[in-house]
Amino acid sequence: MGDGRLDNIVIVLVGTKYPGNIGSAARAMQNMGLRHLRLAAPQCAISEEAQRMARRATGILDKTRVFRSLRSALRGVRLVIGTTGKTGGHRQHACNPRSLAPRILRLAETQKVGIVFGPEDTGLVDEDLLLCQLLARIPTDPRAHSINLAQAVMLVCYELRLARLEHEPSRVLKFASVDEVEAMYQQLEKALREIGFLHDENARHMMFRLRRLLGRAGLEHSDVTILRGIARQAAWFGSRRLGAQRKVDNPSLG
Amino acid sequence: MGDGRLDNIVIVLVGTKYPGNIGSAARAMQNMGLRHLRLAAPQCAISEEAQRMARRATGILDKTRVFRSLRSALRGVRLVIGTTGKTGGHRQHACNPRSLAPRILRLAETQKVGIVFGPEDTGLVDEDLLLCQLLARIPTDPRAHSINLAQAVMLVCYELRLARLEHEPSRVLKFASVDEVEAMYQQLEKALREIGFLHDENARHMMFRLRRLLGRAGLEHSDVTILRGIARQAAWFGSRRLGAQRKVDNPSLG
Repeated sequence: MGDGRLDNIVIVLVGTKYPGNIGSAARAMQNMGLRHLRLAAPQCAISEEAQRMARRATGILDKTRVFRSLRSALRGVRLVIGTTGKTGGHRQHACNPRSLAPRILRLAETQKVGIVFGPEDTGLVDEDLLLCQLLARIPTDPRAHSINLAQAVMLVCYELRLARLEHEPSRVLKFASVDEVEAMYQQLEKALREIGFLHDENARHMMFRLRRLLGRAGLEHSDVTILRGIARQAAWFGSRRLGAQRKVDNPSLG
Repeated sequence: MGDGRLDNIVIVLVGTKYPGNIGSAARAMQNMGLRHLRLAAPQCAISEEAQRMARRATGILDKTRVFRSLRSALRGVRLVIGTTGKTGGHRQHACNPRSLAPRILRLAETQKVGIVFGPEDTGLVDEDLLLCQLLARIPTDPRAHSINLAQAVMLVCYELRLARLEHEPSRVLKFASVDEVEAMYQQLEKALREIGFLHDENARHMMFRLRRLLGRAGLEHSDVTILRGIARQAAWFGSRRLGAQRKVDNPSLG
């Protein structure tokens, strides 16, 4: 997987009060491919509740290191980013995590980056912020800025993961060729005439509408195959019906 | 604040098992400026634990409506987006929430959009996915795709909020209602059986494929009318053909 850059990112929780949040943060980190968690002066233990909330991320908890202070928890870290939900004081230069993520990843190619989250009730205090070179603030509704700690960890890790994925190919629709699609439309039009849905007066308009509709979906090869299958069956029935009708119209052929 | 578009987005939790997740989801929604939560066939109550986890978002919980099924919970919803962590089966067209968010917001200018999250253990099952026009998948580490329910709600709401902060209005599709679309699919399936395209062995798979295909397009009322017209004609021919075949099989009627 080559998660080298994400492996150079350390999540640091300061003064955390609820074990469940430590576990949930670990799970979120694992979801997004981060592994290194440190606790600075936690107010609770990595309890059974933490293990339970971590689900399959107990491996992260097992390796989580506990430090007496934020300062000591930042050992080996070069770039320190503090997170804050507040807007006052020395926090006016906070960036949103989306714009910070590419920069963090670039630095993480060569050195350790720490992202720091404060206690559930107060967030990071000025003393902690002093140690941070950069600040990140998640753009919440201004009337409801208090995000659950593990949720905040998730959002930051998510932005890091997406920044990392940006230059990798993701699954895209592989469209059918124009020739393939046109052949399908011809067959479809023919079939719709056979079953009496289209006639000379409405054919152009209706085929336009169908093209808009199917065009919006974006047709892959397998979609074209299905549509041709439907058209073939419909046409077959249409022609049979004409045969049957001829029989009825001209009893001498019966 | 003029959150009109976010106000037209409904979060629907299906078969939720843990009250804490309902509360945490409500809190995440409030953080991101969403308000409308619906529960479909929940496996737990909106308990004290839910209230506790919601923190200041108890207003959202108080207005949360509970429905017996996903189908009924989608009343009034035009565009239905299912979320899935899995990749198999009919889920290959899932988009990531970031790319979907602007589209969702555009539609939410004029109509209700539902975003559906499955139970904690299984996620949405095929039966639920049938009702969804579009699928969203959060790009997790492939080795750890199981995201906590409330975390998944947070990530989707976060993307909506960020898209809202960027996006500007443009021409939108006005989607047909879920009932209208479901009636069309029933009629279509019946017709495709009549013309022999579907049979018991392939019907489920093929209808899934067609739903994915047409769901990607996004069906407006007039599209549904066209598709029903085609289905009606095809069914009519199918049934005629049975009559014709009887005639052929039994020459004494000729």
